[in-house]
Amino acid sequence: MSYHYDEAVDGPLVKHDRGAVVQMLKARIPDLTILYEDEDLRPFECDGLSAYRIAPLVVVLPDAVGQVQELLRCASEHRIPVVARGAGTGLSGGALPLEKGILLVMAKFNRIIEVNEEGSFARVEPGVRNLAISQAAAKFGMYYAPDPSSQIACSIGGNVAENAGGVHCLKYGLTVHNIVKLKVLTVDGELVTLGSDALDAPGFDLMALFTGSEGMLGIVVEVTVRLLTKPQSAQVLLASFDSVENAGAAVADIIAAGVIPAGLEMMDNLAIRATEDFIRAGYPVDAAAILLCELDGVESDVQEDCAAVGALLRAAGATDVALAKDEAQRQRFWSGRKNAFPAVGRISPDYYCMDGTIPRRELPRVLKGIQRLSEEHRLRVANVFHAGDGNLHPLILFDANAGETERAEALGGAILELCVEVGGSITGEHGVGREKINQMCAQFNNDELSLFHAVKHAFDPDGLLNPGKNVPTLHRCAEFGSMHVHRGALPFPELERF
Amino acid sequence: MSYHYDEAVDGPLVKHDRGAVVQMLKARIPDLTILYEDEDLRPFECDGLSAYRIAPLVVVLPDAVGQVQELLRCASEHRIPVVARGAGTGLSGGALPLEKGILLVMAKFNRIIEVNEEGSFARVEPGVRNLAISQAAAKFGMYYAPDPSSQIACSIGGNVAENAGGVHCLKYGLTVHNIVKLKVLTVDGELVTLGSDALDAPGFDLMALFTGSEGMLGIVVEVTVRLLTKPQSAQVLLASFDSVENAGAAVADIIAAGVIPAGLEMMDNLAIRATEDFIRAGYPVDAAAILLCELDGVESDVQEDCAAVGALLRAAGATDVALAKDEAQRQRFWSGRKNAFPAVGRISPDYYCMDGTIPRRELPRVLKGIQRLSEEHRLRVANVFHAGDGNLHPLILFDANAGETERAEALGGAILELCVEVGGSITGEHGVGREKINQMCAQFNNDELSLFHAVKHAFDPDGLLNPGKNVPTLHRCAEFGSMHVHRGALPFPELERF
Repeated sequence: MSYHYDEAVDGPLVKHDRGAVVQMLKARIPDLTILYEDEDLRPFECDGLSAYRIAPLVVVLPDAVGQVQELLRCASEHRIPVVARGAGTGLSGGALPLEKGILLVMAKFNRIIEVNEEGSFARVEPGVRNLAISQAAAKFGMYYAPDPSSQIACSIGGNVAENAGGVHCLKYGLTVHNIVKLKVLTVDGELVTLGSDALDAPGFDLMALFTGSEGMLGIVVEVTVRLLTKPQSAQVLLASFDSVENAGAAVADIIAAGVIPAGLEMMDNLAIRATEDFIRAGYPVDAAAILLCELDGVESDVQEDCAAVGALLRAAGATDVALAKDEAQRQRFWSGRKNAFPAVGRISPDYYCMDGTIPRRELPRVLKGIQRLSEEHRLRVANVFHAGDGNLHPLILFDANAGETERAEALGGAILELCVEVGGSITGEHGVGREKINQMCAQFNNDELSLFHAVKHAFDPDGLLNPGKNVPTLHRCAEFGSMHVHRGALPFPELERF
Repeated sequence: MSYHYDEAVDGPLVKHDRGAVVQMLKARIPDLTILYEDEDLRPFECDGLSAYRIAPLVVVLPDAVGQVQELLRCASEHRIPVVARGAGTGLSGGALPLEKGILLVMAKFNRIIEVNEEGSFARVEPGVRNLAISQAAAKFGMYYAPDPSSQIACSIGGNVAENAGGVHCLKYGLTVHNIVKLKVLTVDGELVTLGSDALDAPGFDLMALFTGSEGMLGIVVEVTVRLLTKPQSAQVLLASFDSVENAGAAVADIIAAGVIPAGLEMMDNLAIRATEDFIRAGYPVDAAAILLCELDGVESDVQEDCAAVGALLRAAGATDVALAKDEAQRQRFWSGRKNAFPAVGRISPDYYCMDGTIPRRELPRVLKGIQRLSEEHRLRVANVFHAGDGNLHPLILFDANAGETERAEALGGAILELCVEVGGSITGEHGVGREKINQMCAQFNNDELSLFHAVKHAFDPDGLLNPGKNVPTLHRCAEFGSMHVHRGALPFPELERF
């Protein structure tokens, strides 16, 4: 594909000799695990966005904070770029290596340091898997709320880097809302604490700034997460609709009624059929769209909410509303949704998963727009949405062997620009990474990008941490200037008052 | 008091001639309202922390974004510091003027630009009062959740600057959780948009960084706030305890049970007596402590939750639990809490309102510590807490005319250092401002302060925006180095692994 680090637009990187770097690291950090043979580097060539592959200069696997500190000092002294990697499940190429850079794999930091029942928090190392936190907290009846689909594999450090979401983030928030404190290393190897155990730390909110910064501001070495008490009860409603627009309107009705579902997901007919064919979740294959609405909390509250939401769904035109009759059926309803991506993978040689967000009220307009773009580009699109918070995952079906890759990329870009046009953004929960670096030029103007660069410079003046990701250079945006649709409206009409 | 801008530790400011500045501003921005006569400046000498008073060089009251842009350009060119001010209700001196600086009063930006029912948001200018937003949204059955005690007067721009909270932030979050987008001017007068109408904007989270930055990074000119649907029902429980520790333990029990109250407040006996004497809210004057617990949501859910929380309170040792029998009594229960500060003002010539936070589990230990410090300093302390989120407002009672001011300040400092010692922080919702600039040296180490300075430099390289507030200079911290208790423990024990 076309988005690899481009020295012409992103700036030149110093070329280091692999052997010399290995020798230097061995001398400075004797116990550090270093990989540098071609066959050892291969597993690290890509993250979850496997269409992009680059072998790094070297891979290091430290197992102590002091090792990472010394590594960062070495990198700073010799001006070697460093790309951090957690479990490598990211979908936007945020951990794509640089051929002239060190890949810093944090997998060995896998200790759960403390689970504190009384304080409702857990302190963990960055390589701990998302699900492992909930498993460790389960004995106290608690859990960690954000649940990306990759939660069985993805690491909490990667979750922080990407500000990961999940099916339940409508009610429980993104990663940034569920962590309270980070210990991070600056590019110079200084250990600092961001956030605090208490409400709202004073000074600038550097913890929020750091969350979602995709490894460009420093390296996370410890995360304190908030634990929640497991809800007493959870129920799922499955509603069928004969038009996607009606399903979209129902979402708005539920939110407007003041109910906050734990999850509120939409799938369109193509996604339903593909999934049903694969998983037999019990979805209605003739429906134009379905909504899955989970309600959780105190037992009696959940029953009341189910009745209220059921009535709202029927009033909004649902042709059928089914309540999962037991826990097994609830799990089956969700298993369909959670396997929608691989299910779509079965009906197309390749698919490209998008991750745009839009204001919820724009759902019907954007769905029509995607339909139009799909026809224009002659490629099918299956829609799977976190409907409640306006986070879209259109899946573009294509065949790379039939030469459809470029058309798929063009369609993906057009869909993201449509999201920006209606006031949304080019990424919900998957991050910008390498994949969407060019679309950032559509999302932000030069003054805004300059602020990003100033902040980056404040943390990493030499630009050594994950260069070429997340925030594009102004030069890159000049190259891609034709994409610049700034929020689809005349900017800042209130200026006319002056 | 002792914390005015100190050129010896905070750095020198250029001295400008008042007449010359007025002339320059009149020439460059003909329509701008400028105040410069002594009697016109007097009302702007202080904010809500009225013990600190300084007359600014000039006061300006712009009424258009273009005027503020040009003002910032003038200030940048001539290196004149600018202090922004909203309604002036802040309690930490964040809007305290500089005698060598311009005071930028945003009061004329009081337009509600848009209330959008479908999208559940409102776009407002920064001078709009907090309560006015909820009043404008009421016709749609919606409201803006954060409710600082000053909500009838304070402005949304000031709320953003201080990341304001309120009684309901336990359930509904702080300002940063209830805004989605900011339009701000950089120190150069560039207009940029931070955040987006959709979930989780890509790039660094500059909106979160900006929220709570106390006017040091730029000037807010428009705020898009999230509106919530008004809860169907709200109920309040009043529980009495014969020990403060039992009340503290009950708070932990409620949270652990998975109930999220809309508000959970604690008052100790001195606060109860002062309040009851003033307001006749119906509080039990012999109780060692009371808890007020508000539950809101769907009618039937609220009834269930009241029963569950009532049982928890009794099990935790409450000597009495009363449910407000109607809306009038609910309002009366709250009116006591909301008037606790003026009530304490009636029983003491002066009082000093603190604003520390602690991890909730440390409540009993900190309460004992405050009692001990109160005896040591021979001054009474009335305690009023946002107990649910560990935000303390100890009120130190003293008599300035009897020469007790210094002792009150010393006691206040000791209480905040105690908060830091147990893993808390020196401010919950009132901000750092001028008041707590020295305690910041206790809260953060030099590496952390250096990061703050680097971020400040990224936005405001010449340090013109609100200098001397929020983030202390390293020089200041060297002066106050004796206060440095860094989280009360050996820092970073995991380093021993290396």
